[in-house]
Amino acid sequence: MIKVGVVGVSGYSGGVLLSILLRHPRVRVVHVSAFTTTGPVDEIWPVLRGRTRLVCRPYRWKDAARCDLVFLALPHTVSMTVAPRLLASGVRVVDLSGDYRLENRAAYRRWYGVTHKDPRRLGRTIYGLPEWHRGRILKADLVANPGCYATAAILALAPLAALRAEGLRDVIIDAKSGVTGAGKKPLPGLMAAEVNENLRAYKVLRHQHTPEIEDQISRLAGGRRKIVFVPHLVPLNCGILETIYISLAASEDMRGILPLYRKCYKTEPFVRVLPDGEIPSLRSVQGTNYCDIGLVADRPARRLIVVSALDNLYKGAAGQAVQNMNIMCGFPEDEGLR
Amino acid sequence: MIKVGVVGVSGYSGGVLLSILLRHPRVRVVHVSAFTTTGPVDEIWPVLRGRTRLVCRPYRWKDAARCDLVFLALPHTVSMTVAPRLLASGVRVVDLSGDYRLENRAAYRRWYGVTHKDPRRLGRTIYGLPEWHRGRILKADLVANPGCYATAAILALAPLAALRAEGLRDVIIDAKSGVTGAGKKPLPGLMAAEVNENLRAYKVLRHQHTPEIEDQISRLAGGRRKIVFVPHLVPLNCGILETIYISLAASEDMRGILPLYRKCYKTEPFVRVLPDGEIPSLRSVQGTNYCDIGLVADRPARRLIVVSALDNLYKGAAGQAVQNMNIMCGFPEDEGLR
Amino acid sequence: MIKVGVVGVSGYSGGVLLSILLRHPRVRVVHVSAFTTTGPVDEIWPVLRGRTRLVCRPYRWKDAARCDLVFLALPHTVSMTVAPRLLASGVRVVDLSGDYRLENRAAYRRWYGVTHKDPRRLGRTIYGLPEWHRGRILKADLVANPGCYATAAILALAPLAALRAEGLRDVIIDAKSGVTGAGKKPLPGLMAAEVNENLRAYKVLRHQHTPEIEDQISRLAGGRRKIVFVPHLVPLNCGILETIYISLAASEDMRGILPLYRKCYKTEPFVRVLPDGEIPSLRSVQGTNYCDIGLVADRPARRLIVVSALDNLYKGAAGQAVQNMNIMCGFPEDEGLR
Amino acid sequence: MIKVGVVGVSGYSGGVLLSILLRHPRVRVVHVSAFTTTGPVDEIWPVLRGRTRLVCRPYRWKDAARCDLVFLALPHTVSMTVAPRLLASGVRVVDLSGDYRLENRAAYRRWYGVTHKDPRRLGRTIYGLPEWHRGRILKADLVANPGCYATAAILALAPLAALRAEGLRDVIIDAKSGVTGAGKKPLPGLMAAEVNENLRAYKVLRHQHTPEIEDQISRLAGGRRKIVFVPHLVPLNCGILETIYISLAASEDMRGILPLYRKCYKTEPFVRVLPDGEIPSLRSVQGTNYCDIGLVADRPARRLIVVSALDNLYKGAAGQAVQNMNIMCGFPEDEGLR
Repeated sequence: MIKVGVVGVSGYSGGVLLSILLRHPRVRVVHVSAFTTTGPVDEIWPVLRGRTRLVCRPYRWKDAARCDLVFLALPHTVSMTVAPRLLASGVRVVDLSGDYRLENRAAYRRWYGVTHKDPRRLGRTIYGLPEWHRGRILKADLVANPGCYATAAILALAPLAALRAEGLRDVIIDAKSGVTGAGKKPLPGLMAAEVNENLRAYKVLRHQHTPEIEDQISRLAGGRRKIVFVPHLVPLNCGILETIYISLAASEDMRGILPLYRKCYKTEPFVRVLPDGEIPSLRSVQGTNYCDIGLVADRPARRLIVVSALDNLYKGAAGQAVQNMNIMCGFPEDEGLR
Repeated sequence: MIKVGVVGVSGYSGGVLLSILLRHPRVRVVHVSAFTTTGPVDEIWPVLRGRTRLVCRPYRWKDAARCDLVFLALPHTVSMTVAPRLLASGVRVVDLSGDYRLENRAAYRRWYGVTHKDPRRLGRTIYGLPEWHRGRILKADLVANPGCYATAAILALAPLAALRAEGLRDVIIDAKSGVTGAGKKPLPGLMAAEVNENLRAYKVLRHQHTPEIEDQISRLAGGRRKIVFVPHLVPLNCGILETIYISLAASEDMRGILPLYRKCYKTEPFVRVLPDGEIPSLRSVQGTNYCDIGLVADRPARRLIVVSALDNLYKGAAGQAVQNMNIMCGFPEDEGLR
Repeated sequence: MIKVGVVGVSGYSGGVLLSILLRHPRVRVVHVSAFTTTGPVDEIWPVLRGRTRLVCRPYRWKDAARCDLVFLALPHTVSMTVAPRLLASGVRVVDLSGDYRLENRAAYRRWYGVTHKDPRRLGRTIYGLPEWHRGRILKADLVANPGCYATAAILALAPLAALRAEGLRDVIIDAKSGVTGAGKKPLPGLMAAEVNENLRAYKVLRHQHTPEIEDQISRLAGGRRKIVFVPHLVPLNCGILETIYISLAASEDMRGILPLYRKCYKTEPFVRVLPDGEIPSLRSVQGTNYCDIGLVADRPARRLIVVSALDNLYKGAAGQAVQNMNIMCGFPEDEGLR
Repeated sequence: MIKVGVVGVSGYSGGVLLSILLRHPRVRVVHVSAFTTTGPVDEIWPVLRGRTRLVCRPYRWKDAARCDLVFLALPHTVSMTVAPRLLASGVRVVDLSGDYRLENRAAYRRWYGVTHKDPRRLGRTIYGLPEWHRGRILKADLVANPGCYATAAILALAPLAALRAEGLRDVIIDAKSGVTGAGKKPLPGLMAAEVNENLRAYKVLRHQHTPEIEDQISRLAGGRRKIVFVPHLVPLNCGILETIYISLAASEDMRGILPLYRKCYKTEPFVRVLPDGEIPSLRSVQGTNYCDIGLVADRPARRLIVVSALDNLYKGAAGQAVQNMNIMCGFPEDEGLR
């Protein structure tokens, strides 16, 4: 039984995170805090009424430092002001924001628009995608929990990038997300009347998960790779579906690719490679920590279409954060996530 | 051809109003303005791209005063600061807000929470429900366009109130509305992630359309009547459906009621009383200026269930405003609304 | 560890039931079957991929009879052909259909339109609403799991019916439900294009849950009571919200009612009476076995408005079925439901 | 004033078509019929109550032959059994199905799965995309109204195909559609409970609009072109949004492309090319006959991203059919469509 804390419990990721942790048999939540919304947790999240008497306080370093491990479910640019002092106190940290995911301060400045305040940890922080970095997560003090879009993209591309890098050519990611991925802040474009019965692309070629995907794929491929990434906002609450168009070199044996994926993820508890010809839908992953992956080959055109689906609040955020904690603490990896 | 203006064109009612007026053969829109959002109208409402080059300017009395008739599609408490001067300049006004709908300043203060700034017009302004006040609208300089909930409720209750007042007992209105009825301001409770897959009652017994309905029903009935009004927010964009539970006196011949409704609205262009046993749905009224009304009688219990449906942006706001303008100006009542 | 079976696993209730049972620590699912759709369970419910290798077979009595307890998640009129033989074999049965909920064969015929095939069990079967019949459920061999609408209505009315029967006058239930409550059969009126952006009342005064509510309220009140029940179809997947309008006798002290509700349900694990002035929303109960209840008093009018909310697939069907099983088997009542 | 008929008025396209024609000042609808659903039109489409007394009869050639022009809003494989005899009677026909869109019988058999019954008209029928075939539509007796997906794709690709064919390389079309595009037949996958809060790709590389797009693009480009086409079903009613990824030859001057598009469509009444950097959303085209097109250039990668949006029932079906009729009959092209 370890003591954990959640900073930023009033956001969507924070709320789901808390609800997972409250039924996790190996942790005790001893700290919940936030920078803006405070009060009894069951007033912030009425669904938790009767399940907890925790009170969300304004964040104070001293309170959080009592924990063995703290989750930062904070907006970009805030985590980097909080994590260093916790780490210095010997608290392990899983950061759900984008603050520690990129390689260097120039990239951070370019994609997030501000100067990084803890730059020496950039490029040295463990990227918390268990399927590809499990060994390093185990020993990490700070884990950068991957972005929701990035998780779906990297899991769908990684087998090729890692094992068929020479055959991997163009990559186009057409991503579709529900609205919880955009956060809880009341922005005009996220109002029900604007989102419902509507559909739009946004941040075309400018979304901040782009460099994260490129960095990870490049590392796996052993050389710099570019991707095209276009996200869309879809009128639903939870889930990301990505349709990924991959050009392959003429030399590539396309028949071997599905077996490759199946082998890669065979023992993974939370990645399901679908049978030949099946395509995932959001319904099958909502409320779960699974990422489902389906493949369709266009052999004459040397093109592979990979569709991946996950719940942005589970495998795309809070669920994956708990999976990372389980690894860090030597718990069964799926504890609290089934 | 008259010259009209729309003040508050950036709101949902203002936008629909403008799109109706642009295809109305007897008006020319010479003025569009707003208090906050300004700029080319086709940037505010991209659907109008290619249909107009109008530019929405900050509201100035002088500009608006060039019109023969001005629509005020403004929030409550703003219209009353704008209307008096326009009226003094000889401009006719249709006000879509709640500012001129109530009987007196005490009621306004109680339900809208502020002191009325033009109180001598309260109780003397024509309530713009054409089906029941057509004659007075014709000659009015200022018309208070009814609220969306109120229109659906009053049209459903008026035949009984006006013609069977003595038999009319308890009235309970369970109202359901889509999100455009709540306006365009980004409030937390109107975010897509909060509204979708959700349903809630709000302002139970405290909604500001309550006194408006009570006033009108009381006038028709010739004596003070109370109603119970409970609105609900439903995950859809446009439309109001009200299920109204009416207790009738033992003396009332229930078989006569459907014929009574049919007769009442027989020549009305925008009220459709459905055949016996049919119940309206939103689908049949969306995008139209119709209010559909269906009746079900529970004879042993002396109870009548009336279901009424309308599109809150048409018959519940902009459509009805144009209907009022048509009457005021002697145009065919359905001009621009078919 | 008991052996359980689910008959009718391909329906929405059956699917949720199975997913609860698969993580329930005291049961082993040894039988899943259906009358129409068969095959591997994880093809019927892809969300369960990786969690089970169960295969749904055509229903055969012999297979089901191996179980200690069987859930019938079957349509009305089918359960009554299956339950008798299972009961005769010593299998305990929780029936999620309406087949055993009513008092007598005349009522069944009237509301379900067919002749009952096991009529001697009508009026003698335990109605599985734990909050009011826990003691009898404990010993029952056959439990009639309540309807979704009925659960929300009865929980909201029972404290008054049982403890203030003399003061309870008129009851009007305006119910709103998402689409999973209507089942999985592809009917024209349940198509996405018909349901989305739409809203309609249906089966006005004719819904088959009406007699179930009246029976239970009458039993608690010690005398025959009628209710008005009007259901509506709302464009969302899961959840029921009921707004209930109750007239009270002049003698009734309205201030005592909220305390009465709180006391009634104080120790109940799955009923949450909200603080004074708070109204439940669907969001707070979705995916849970809770029924939330909020009260608003209109004192001058002697009227009480009770709003109740639950997830039709959990407390309204599968969750409540498991709660009943837990009671029948002496397990902790919330096992598998937190 | 010409006499027109609608065969297949009970489908979504047929319904919208009729509602446009009823307010079209130059036509009189003298015939409505269907093969399955019949009865008063305002019972099939309650929104039309009060606007028409037309009765939908079972289709008979003799009745339809009274018209000057007939719209066939029929399913694939039915139109080809109806059109020949009407044409033989001198009736002009606009066919909204896919029966006359492809080049030859082999393609039809491959993509629609049946043998064509009127094969000599394949490859000779005018493809009713006014922006590119206006001159030939003018004189046509039979017009094959384009598919909804195909309209959005071809309008987005045609300027490059026609004017920069040598620079046009790979084309990937990621298409998203609401549910009315899938028709009114109650299929399990189109039920609200399956569609809402869900998202899925379907018919990946196998959708029957693929050859239609390839044929048209190839004709314009003067040489055979292949495309990748992946459609997705999105939880909304009306609208198609396509995100198209185009690789360009190194020689291509990308700065010239937006001007090229603007020039191409400058005088078109129903294609709006958005300003540089703007991306269309469904909201701006719903309920209109517009197709909106936005472009984003990824210069270093020689890639162009074109986003096109239209309402599948207007520019994607009924609206375009009326536009074709207007051209065929010498009416103003936007008559009835503003």
